[in-house]
Amino acid sequence: MKKNVIVGQSGGPTAVINASLYGVISEALAREDDFEKVYGMVNGVEGFLNGQIMDMGTLEKSGELELIRTTPGSYLGSCRYKLPEDLEDKIYPELFEKFAEYGIAYFFYIGGNDSMDTVSKLSRYAKKTGSDIRFLGIPKTIDNDLVHTDHTPGFGSAAKYVASTVREIAVDASVYDNKKSVTIVEIMGRHAGWLAAASALARKFEGDNPMLIYLPETAFDPERFLNDVTAAMEKTSNLVVCISEGINDGNGKFICELSGDVGVDTFGHKMLTGSGKYLENLVKERLGVKVRSIELNVCQRCSSAMLSDTDLKEAAAAGAYGVKCALAGETGKMIAFHRVPGAEYQIEYITEDVSLICNQEKTVPAEWITGNGSDVGREFIEYALPLIRGRVEVPEKDGLPLFAYRKRHF
Amino acid sequence: MKKNVIVGQSGGPTAVINASLYGVISEALAREDDFEKVYGMVNGVEGFLNGQIMDMGTLEKSGELELIRTTPGSYLGSCRYKLPEDLEDKIYPELFEKFAEYGIAYFFYIGGNDSMDTVSKLSRYAKKTGSDIRFLGIPKTIDNDLVHTDHTPGFGSAAKYVASTVREIAVDASVYDNKKSVTIVEIMGRHAGWLAAASALARKFEGDNPMLIYLPETAFDPERFLNDVTAAMEKTSNLVVCISEGINDGNGKFICELSGDVGVDTFGHKMLTGSGKYLENLVKERLGVKVRSIELNVCQRCSSAMLSDTDLKEAAAAGAYGVKCALAGETGKMIAFHRVPGAEYQIEYITEDVSLICNQEKTVPAEWITGNGSDVGREFIEYALPLIRGRVEVPEKDGLPLFAYRKRHF
Repeated sequence: MKKNVIVGQSGGPTAVINASLYGVISEALAREDDFEKVYGMVNGVEGFLNGQIMDMGTLEKSGELELIRTTPGSYLGSCRYKLPEDLEDKIYPELFEKFAEYGIAYFFYIGGNDSMDTVSKLSRYAKKTGSDIRFLGIPKTIDNDLVHTDHTPGFGSAAKYVASTVREIAVDASVYDNKKSVTIVEIMGRHAGWLAAASALARKFEGDNPMLIYLPETAFDPERFLNDVTAAMEKTSNLVVCISEGINDGNGKFICELSGDVGVDTFGHKMLTGSGKYLENLVKERLGVKVRSIELNVCQRCSSAMLSDTDLKEAAAAGAYGVKCALAGETGKMIAFHRVPGAEYQIEYITEDVSLICNQEKTVPAEWITGNGSDVGREFIEYALPLIRGRVEVPEKDGLPLFAYRKRHF
Repeated sequence: MKKNVIVGQSGGPTAVINASLYGVISEALAREDDFEKVYGMVNGVEGFLNGQIMDMGTLEKSGELELIRTTPGSYLGSCRYKLPEDLEDKIYPELFEKFAEYGIAYFFYIGGNDSMDTVSKLSRYAKKTGSDIRFLGIPKTIDNDLVHTDHTPGFGSAAKYVASTVREIAVDASVYDNKKSVTIVEIMGRHAGWLAAASALARKFEGDNPMLIYLPETAFDPERFLNDVTAAMEKTSNLVVCISEGINDGNGKFICELSGDVGVDTFGHKMLTGSGKYLENLVKERLGVKVRSIELNVCQRCSSAMLSDTDLKEAAAAGAYGVKCALAGETGKMIAFHRVPGAEYQIEYITEDVSLICNQEKTVPAEWITGNGSDVGREFIEYALPLIRGRVEVPEKDGLPLFAYRKRHF
């Protein structure tokens, strides 16, 4: 008897998480001999528990599937839902009964750290109870912080957005180059500075802005920062500084916490805001120079204008490869990228044990951070440049990008 | 004897102010019989007074001129420098001596309201003193607030950026559509709501986000706003609201002033920040719903990723047309756009008296504002849609847009 497939998306959106969705669905639909139905869970495991599923087969016929490929955000909707640590919890049999009800034999979950935690728990529960449902994780995160993979889908496009936006901000800042100014750009990234590091790609020539870049990997010292700014202002009238939202004192205290209260999200992560604003006020007060801070908005993670073709293709290929691996009998794995050594950029798709990936964080290597913690070196540039390459022609209508969307009912 | 041309840029940057610069320079350079040298003033009239000028002829030979066409920001640098009202001021003879020194017979100034004020004063001083130097203004402003012209170069690309970014923000906001949320997007525009109105173009279908749009043209009532938000939340889980930075109580008090202090810029304009933040706190406190505010950053005015081809071509054509008009003997004029009535979008380039344009502001017509001040109607959509059309292939290198830049010396 042919079996059914289910796929879901979880965690924050990226520009290419739908490309991975496209990869899973199109590969599964192409294998009519192996699969009967391809389902999508709406709002991840949380929605699935409430019976929110949809048949993805109709999307291909309507042409919607092709449009999904270049649509940012999570077409199926997302959730931040953590399964209990205790595999004896009654939610597990409840979930597996639902899997049985829909004839699910293959489960694909596209997400980051927390989503891989879900895949790990479900596959462990399956093993424990003798279920032969196969659970595969497809990586996605703009943070690029998953271990055991060269990089993650979503990072390349986010890095391209950050680099091009910072380049444009630097152009904007230099317009009044007869007046001194400092512009501080705050970039997403709680514990890993990959995305802020990508701002280094914005430089048009050596010594160009952003002249200073601070990551969470290095302890941030406000006095050294003020010295760095003062020294840089000797070389440029209009200084652009890039920081990760998560810059901290090296003992876990975020710089933005120096100024006010912060909340905590579902996973116990501190919710950050305002490191840039804090430094803006610091520069104003201590150096008396014209200063502004800019918080890059959510388009860091969901802009279609700066899609990297490399990223888009890899995201789709990771989804398709996941289907092949599941059919070959793999479970409890995440699709990972291995960079083949050599002058030419080349990626091999592999699988890694998902339990070794979830709840870990990969940060920028200390030896890639230069300038006494105020810059990144050549190694980072060489690592990141291939990931942002290639332009994507997103379908347009009336001068605007055309996006797929799921009909909502109220 | 052949005469020289000088061109400058003034006021805030746009994505296409350099396209107008390209238009002036390439048209002037092509008319070797009419002109000797084409100069650029660095940092506008203020830089010119300090002797900062450059020869633009070399740029064409190096290929840099073509790159300038699609580079956002002001290649020549800008200034915010207001000439004295009193034409007897000693700065006028000083400026005209400098014009004589460089053999300037044609002066082109690309800018908005305040720049047209400069063109008006210089042309009136020339008339008064019998000088035959011709002064022409080339319009630019993302605010679209110049009178006697259908629209201004810079608005189309900014509108396209706003519309596509708000569309992406709405995608991002809808990812957790099982949780209620409000997203408030603050868009540039002190007194004219053209750019915030452009967020209406972001809708993918009727009734889509942004469901509420507030402009400075209508008195803003916080209580009615809260009622609007409550009503809209009945129809969507994830509401996106767009506001102009300049929303006010109808008596000149900005909404952001309800919360804190504001400064004043060189021209006596109030410097705004935080209307979005103010409303975020209001919604949190009064409605208790999850809410965030996003301030669209400076890329509203200097993004190359969302260049409108229509805007780019019109900006360059306005520059070139300015050169033709000056040669034909016009002075004290601004190049303006006349929209030819008819189903097909078509623009005629005309000239208007610059003195009737400077220090005036064109706002969104009251009859285009609908929903009791919470939306814009079909008239606006029909007006704005042609202006954002067409994709521009900006030259790329290493996956990033390639920009021209002027070498700075320190």
